[in-house]
Amino acid sequence: MKVICSQSDLKTNLSLVSRAVPTRPTHPILANVLLTTDADKGRVSLTAFDLSLGIRTSFPAQVSEGGSITLPAKLLNDIVVRLPEGEITLVYEEDELDDNPLVSIRSISGKFQLRGMKVEEFPELPTIAQEQPLMLPVTSLSDGLKGSLFSASSDETKQVLTGVHLIRNCHNLEFAATDGHRLAVVQTQDESEESQSRETATTDATKDETNFAITIPARALRELEKILSMAKEDDSIALYVDEGQVVFELGEQYLTSRKLEGTYPDYQQLIPLQFARHMVIERKRLIDSLERVAVLADQRNNLVKFTLEAEEEQVTLLVEARELGSAKESIPAQITGESLEIGFNIKYLMDGLKALPAPDIQMHFNEAKQPVIITPLGGLKMTYLIMPVQIRD
Amino acid sequence: MKVICSQSDLKTNLSLVSRAVPTRPTHPILANVLLTTDADKGRVSLTAFDLSLGIRTSFPAQVSEGGSITLPAKLLNDIVVRLPEGEITLVYEEDELDDNPLVSIRSISGKFQLRGMKVEEFPELPTIAQEQPLMLPVTSLSDGLKGSLFSASSDETKQVLTGVHLIRNCHNLEFAATDGHRLAVVQTQDESEESQSRETATTDATKDETNFAITIPARALRELEKILSMAKEDDSIALYVDEGQVVFELGEQYLTSRKLEGTYPDYQQLIPLQFARHMVIERKRLIDSLERVAVLADQRNNLVKFTLEAEEEQVTLLVEARELGSAKESIPAQITGESLEIGFNIKYLMDGLKALPAPDIQMHFNEAKQPVIITPLGGLKMTYLIMPVQIRD
Repeated sequence: MKVICSQSDLKTNLSLVSRAVPTRPTHPILANVLLTTDADKGRVSLTAFDLSLGIRTSFPAQVSEGGSITLPAKLLNDIVVRLPEGEITLVYEEDELDDNPLVSIRSISGKFQLRGMKVEEFPELPTIAQEQPLMLPVTSLSDGLKGSLFSASSDETKQVLTGVHLIRNCHNLEFAATDGHRLAVVQTQDESEESQSRETATTDATKDETNFAITIPARALRELEKILSMAKEDDSIALYVDEGQVVFELGEQYLTSRKLEGTYPDYQQLIPLQFARHMVIERKRLIDSLERVAVLADQRNNLVKFTLEAEEEQVTLLVEARELGSAKESIPAQITGESLEIGFNIKYLMDGLKALPAPDIQMHFNEAKQPVIITPLGGLKMTYLIMPVQIRD
Repeated sequence: MKVICSQSDLKTNLSLVSRAVPTRPTHPILANVLLTTDADKGRVSLTAFDLSLGIRTSFPAQVSEGGSITLPAKLLNDIVVRLPEGEITLVYEEDELDDNPLVSIRSISGKFQLRGMKVEEFPELPTIAQEQPLMLPVTSLSDGLKGSLFSASSDETKQVLTGVHLIRNCHNLEFAATDGHRLAVVQTQDESEESQSRETATTDATKDETNFAITIPARALRELEKILSMAKEDDSIALYVDEGQVVFELGEQYLTSRKLEGTYPDYQQLIPLQFARHMVIERKRLIDSLERVAVLADQRNNLVKFTLEAEEEQVTLLVEARELGSAKESIPAQITGESLEIGFNIKYLMDGLKALPAPDIQMHFNEAKQPVIITPLGGLKMTYLIMPVQIRD
């Protein structure tokens, strides 16, 4: 193998695939990245795979001799980021008798040699035999993930709750995530040309084929978010789905993940349809106040008490940490319905407020022990449900 | 007590004194900051003290009622940094019967109440009865600390080695620090007008009085560095010394520290007077190369081998991590004397190179097992001594 590529291409692409390298690999080869050079196409491709999440990417290079080798991902990454900008030459001798050949990495600054491992042991990335992928607009997917991912559980024992539930139904994409304390649901319109034309051109039977409900691990979706952030706004990403796997493909970037098994909770039934009280408030102002009073709430139970004062057209936030002190702030708000005292876990409340993409938001209440819904005023269709916390006097 | 001050003044000064608040206080009051308001002077002063290091600072404010109180330092700091810019009012009622009164902190955003603790329990900062302090130029002190502090030991059991040894002798200030593996010595000229005039006006007897050799904990000096960074270049800082303490005073900032007891090692005898080999090299280039090869050295014993090639006018850096690979870089250098192979601990070498304030540096060698000296080419008078590491083939 012999290839000359640019340091910046290698650096960027290594950093992307490195996220699929496990920190504690179950097998030594999984700590490696697979590097394949194709002389005909003049490209280098990089692959990492932790048996659940896999990422592949490729970039142009001067390949004078094709070949494949795997190299320790972390070490290679640490070296490449420190190399000076400019050309890098990667070489190893195909006819070396050693099973694990030394790969030399030359730049103008000097020469590294890294021991590789043969590619035979490196697991193949899953592929999905599906001729027509679904084309999803980058913006829909990006909005949907931004509004839901943070609500997924980080507790690995919670299985299906560690993912985002994705439902496709005709023109709609719905994203939902919950960890049992709060729930975030985002609806976006899947308005890509592809889906529009398919919609009009095909029968009801094929329409059903493109509908699905799947749960994808949050970890894979966080990496997908990074890939999406590099895409153009009007790009579309191809999605392939089969029994056990999903594959996302955007240009040269390929991300594969296992699906999460198990029935996702029927979250729609948790969302109340009617409310006794509504409040419109400036989102940033509410977040700033919560960040201040959180300093005291952190010391105790993370509890903040909201007092909705309809006549005064304000909401008062109160945190009491008896032995330490208290914090109290009032914020102007348009309130309809009777006054109310209700308690929240500040962290869960803040998470939702930070993800809501609008300058003003609406909070919808019934009574002090019933779920509260927060929605943006205009813009994206997002629903954040939070369970109140009981206030002990 | 009642005082109105600006959020930014309170924030800056709190952040400065907070560094003397212990993370694990031996007594609850030490986790607090002492806040004193003086109606006549129109100033607020803040003090923190961990019984070894103490910092006091003050700033102007509208004091309508003087008083003293201590408040939990971390909590107060966390609150104040989040308050909006503008006026802050601090109030507590002197006639409250409670021993630990609630202090209210009002801003336009709302009101915090924090439980204070009475000032009686707060320990007094040491003072030194000395009429004439030594006036040290900020730049000398700053250069001296920058070139030595990093070499002090961070191992608390090493006592006197956890400090910087400061020697004043006539016009010179000498800073030395060593952790047993390397030694840094900086000499600066104490050219303040004060010392000049004292020098000329007084007798030999009083000259001796202003000479001293003391060891000050590195921790206190790191805080002093932060105070110095806010000073003007031509400022001078007052130094008071007595049996057990030192006090630095710069404008409204007052830093006190205990001295470290015990005899400081006679480091001058470690520095060879003659060398068989010399090398001049570009500092940045050497650091960049070392940072790259360190990626591999990190995996093993942090060892880098230098090969001085006098004829080729270059030095070659080699790191070998047998099972992983190797790294090799060559850098142009002016070498006098015979060629040599010598090993270094990369970390210790890098620490020194980063602190040397010059574009080019000189390395002075004898044989492969003898100490090596690094000095800047021009500029500050700094000597960095590093013990080589034996190379096992």
